[in-house]
Amino acid sequence: MAQDLLKANKDLAQQNRELFQAQGVKVVNLISSPGSGKTSLLETTLALLWGHCRMGVIEGDISTTRDAERIAGQGVPVVQINTGGLCHLDARMVERAAQELPLGDLDVVLIENVGNLVCPASFDLGEACKVVLLSVTEGSDKPAKYPKVFQQAQAVVISKVDLLPYTDFDLAGCLEELKQINPRLHVFTTSAKTQAGFSPWLAWLQNTEVP
Amino acid sequence: MAQDLLKANKDLAQQNRELFQAQGVKVVNLISSPGSGKTSLLETTLALLWGHCRMGVIEGDISTTRDAERIAGQGVPVVQINTGGLCHLDARMVERAAQELPLGDLDVVLIENVGNLVCPASFDLGEACKVVLLSVTEGSDKPAKYPKVFQQAQAVVISKVDLLPYTDFDLAGCLEELKQINPRLHVFTTSAKTQAGFSPWLAWLQNTEVP
Repeated sequence: MAQDLLKANKDLAQQNRELFQAQGVKVVNLISSPGSGKTSLLETTLALLWGHCRMGVIEGDISTTRDAERIAGQGVPVVQINTGGLCHLDARMVERAAQELPLGDLDVVLIENVGNLVCPASFDLGEACKVVLLSVTEGSDKPAKYPKVFQQAQAVVISKVDLLPYTDFDLAGCLEELKQINPRLHVFTTSAKTQAGFSPWLAWLQNTEVP
Repeated sequence: MAQDLLKANKDLAQQNRELFQAQGVKVVNLISSPGSGKTSLLETTLALLWGHCRMGVIEGDISTTRDAERIAGQGVPVVQINTGGLCHLDARMVERAAQELPLGDLDVVLIENVGNLVCPASFDLGEACKVVLLSVTEGSDKPAKYPKVFQQAQAVVISKVDLLPYTDFDLAGCLEELKQINPRLHVFTTSAKTQAGFSPWLAWLQNTEVP
């Protein structure tokens, strides 16, 4: 049954992908542990790209609408998905949410997945690319311990680098492990608090050609 | 099928629970996001209780044996479970791992679950109690956003409090939300780096009567 479910999800994800391509919108699936700073990355990204890039947001949460409320203050179209306890978003949820967005008027849609470094890796949403967030306070061993999502991603954002001096996060070691797990990864180091490192991330988000 | 699977797990968990009670060992299921500091809490707990409490450890990981290697250096019996990609431990895995521990000679067994704040909440392992870790760098909104695991837990350890001055974690607000979600929770605030707050946690771990 799990295999059937994954196959049905994959088929629907492919329909989503074709719709997004036809509408000319780049859809990014943002994945991380709870509390790695997905919503803060979104807020800073939306603020800095305001006027340069037409953005929309799909907010995935198990419970509460707090993140959507945070994002709604920034004046971009945002749709909330509440998974009702489920540990990941799936293609069906994204299909429905996308109907509420003006896709044809947008350049980029950022999907904030449920905070979970494991299960979302198994569910294609029809996105153009997956981006994984890893905060420096989580420890530099996480790519080796949760490899699947890093293998599938096109980019990694190492977040909260303003806290580096107070942690024993091994940045050089982490970059080396990421390279071993997935040599094609683009890696950005950012702080939403100080806005350090955002320029290369924003340039990649706007300009990258995705397969 | 999911219901059958959960029912089968519950039955087996109950067998585990009866075995642990018969052997007089208190089994604690430690749950958190990746990188909240479960292994660091374990290391400090084992070091401080050395000679006062006979402890054993079951280490759950999706990939790598790094945590078991960290723990093995502390001279307590430790068994590694590799879930092979699965996002949580289940009662069958714990049943097998427990056979490799000298249960009758132990007072407390700490199980480090897979780093995941969602799925482990649905799988009873036969433990006497669940303890959830929440690091201050994850943000104080996590109990409201991931309520199930906090509803099921007997205790919460708010970890990495040495980083409080560098974050906007709202400790008073978080304590208030935890009380609303689960009024019976015991809450401890700790730093594995400075050993702050460990005394009440260690006392609770040794002395609490679990139902």
